[in-house]
Amino acid sequence: MFVYRRPVRFAEVDAARIVFFARYLEYCHDALEALFGGLEGGYAALTMGRDIGIPSVHAEVDWRAPLRYGDTARIEVTVLKLGRTSVTFQHRLVREADGVVCADVRQVVVTARLDALGTVPIPDDVRALLETYRAPGEPAA
Amino acid sequence: MFVYRRPVRFAEVDAARIVFFARYLEYCHDALEALFGGLEGGYAALTMGRDIGIPSVHAEVDWRAPLRYGDTARIEVTVLKLGRTSVTFQHRLVREADGVVCADVRQVVVTARLDALGTVPIPDDVRALLETYRAPGEPAA
Amino acid sequence: MFVYRRPVRFAEVDAARIVFFARYLEYCHDALEALFGGLEGGYAALTMGRDIGIPSVHAEVDWRAPLRYGDTARIEVTVLKLGRTSVTFQHRLVREADGVVCADVRQVVVTARLDALGTVPIPDDVRALLETYRAPGEPAA
Amino acid sequence: MFVYRRPVRFAEVDAARIVFFARYLEYCHDALEALFGGLEGGYAALTMGRDIGIPSVHAEVDWRAPLRYGDTARIEVTVLKLGRTSVTFQHRLVREADGVVCADVRQVVVTARLDALGTVPIPDDVRALLETYRAPGEPAA
Repeated sequence: MFVYRRPVRFAEVDAARIVFFARYLEYCHDALEALFGGLEGGYAALTMGRDIGIPSVHAEVDWRAPLRYGDTARIEVTVLKLGRTSVTFQHRLVREADGVVCADVRQVVVTARLDALGTVPIPDDVRALLETYRAPGEPAA
Repeated sequence: MFVYRRPVRFAEVDAARIVFFARYLEYCHDALEALFGGLEGGYAALTMGRDIGIPSVHAEVDWRAPLRYGDTARIEVTVLKLGRTSVTFQHRLVREADGVVCADVRQVVVTARLDALGTVPIPDDVRALLETYRAPGEPAA
Repeated sequence: MFVYRRPVRFAEVDAARIVFFARYLEYCHDALEALFGGLEGGYAALTMGRDIGIPSVHAEVDWRAPLRYGDTARIEVTVLKLGRTSVTFQHRLVREADGVVCADVRQVVVTARLDALGTVPIPDDVRALLETYRAPGEPAA
Repeated sequence: MFVYRRPVRFAEVDAARIVFFARYLEYCHDALEALFGGLEGGYAALTMGRDIGIPSVHAEVDWRAPLRYGDTARIEVTVLKLGRTSVTFQHRLVREADGVVCADVRQVVVTARLDALGTVPIPDDVRALLETYRAPGEPAA
């Protein structure tokens, strides 16, 4: 499991004074950018240097509790499935102060060339990194 | 079906030069804000005046094709289910120029007091408006 | 003067429930994207097709009154100066309902190649378009 | 001088693949939120708990160089002036890797009640904190 902590910022809440629902996916992406920091040069080297990204193809989101300004979100990322060209992540967004689960996100991404967006096999270094965050007891794909 | 058109803006693409995946949900919300323009005073009167909002509780998103700067997204919204305190929307995001479906989003919201976020029955005027955009042949909930 | 109207969106306010100060510049850019709609293919054709953009080099902003959810901003754009490679815009952000001036923004941009960001002379069609929105009585640069 | 480091995130660049100009002000605000972490309870306690915020009234921005995905911005904040109800900040945004100055921002904020936005004298703890980041040799206001 990869854990990423992120305070809610002043501009991230909406007129209801809770973090705007779409931003939960932004928080997940922030966590993934941090996770890919485990690669040589980070996610930037992968995307800008090697022209490989991870566009999302599917997600299921359950919003369970609000996040407000002053909260810190703890995003717990696990790799559920690791295919040839796709990865399934599970993100749990937890309110740091009281441990309340604010959302569960299951996200499927593919590895793709950013120029033409065609899928490519997961590069070896990416696969090795992602194996590290595999959910325990999860069989190989 | 409610239809909302929205050009991609210069700042809405990411480093891969496609609309950032989380923004697809923003586009859906923009469409809903426009749809609720059918209420007296619009969504602003509902939320700021009557303190009732529609927090999301669940969504399933399928990203099918990219949107780029220069594209206009056409968001087609239908009401799939209308419960006592919840609504299921179907959003189809279509690239206006060539009709390519860029995403399908199924989103479940509840009607809730914004102060405490407790659910309330869908107000009559909201229900009447939403009935207008019911998917054809969809039975009452 | 070019006029662009834009309702405040639900996610654009901050934890103080007013439009986040940095977004005022976003609103100005939205107005410019609309203004450049007067070009063949719009701003997208200029930037993505001809690889010419208008990066900002300087701005002075006076925030005078808040914008809240439910408000519509009317952005009034005039061209104050038109140089060889630079343009000075004046944006006035007005709250549509009561005519209160919410901000004055003076923004200097340059025309530049987007690949290398080197300045280029303002293209003729861009200059002709901008002349249209020249402040009255303003001498040629 | 208060120093805050912040990697550019994937979604923060625009269609020109550089950090969108308006986001530079967001980065400054991020730095201020971090700076106010020096208060008991941080900026959240000040704004949400004591209902005091720092709305901007004026800014002058000079954009000098682009920030791209993969860059980290170092924001150097100094307090230039400390009045009875207003503060002038100087933000210097530096590209961490090569030390290039990407922007200089002079920002004037006022301390104000967030409910009615009327100015209030700078609270003592806020003043004491801000004195810490005073530019050297700067006389009292």
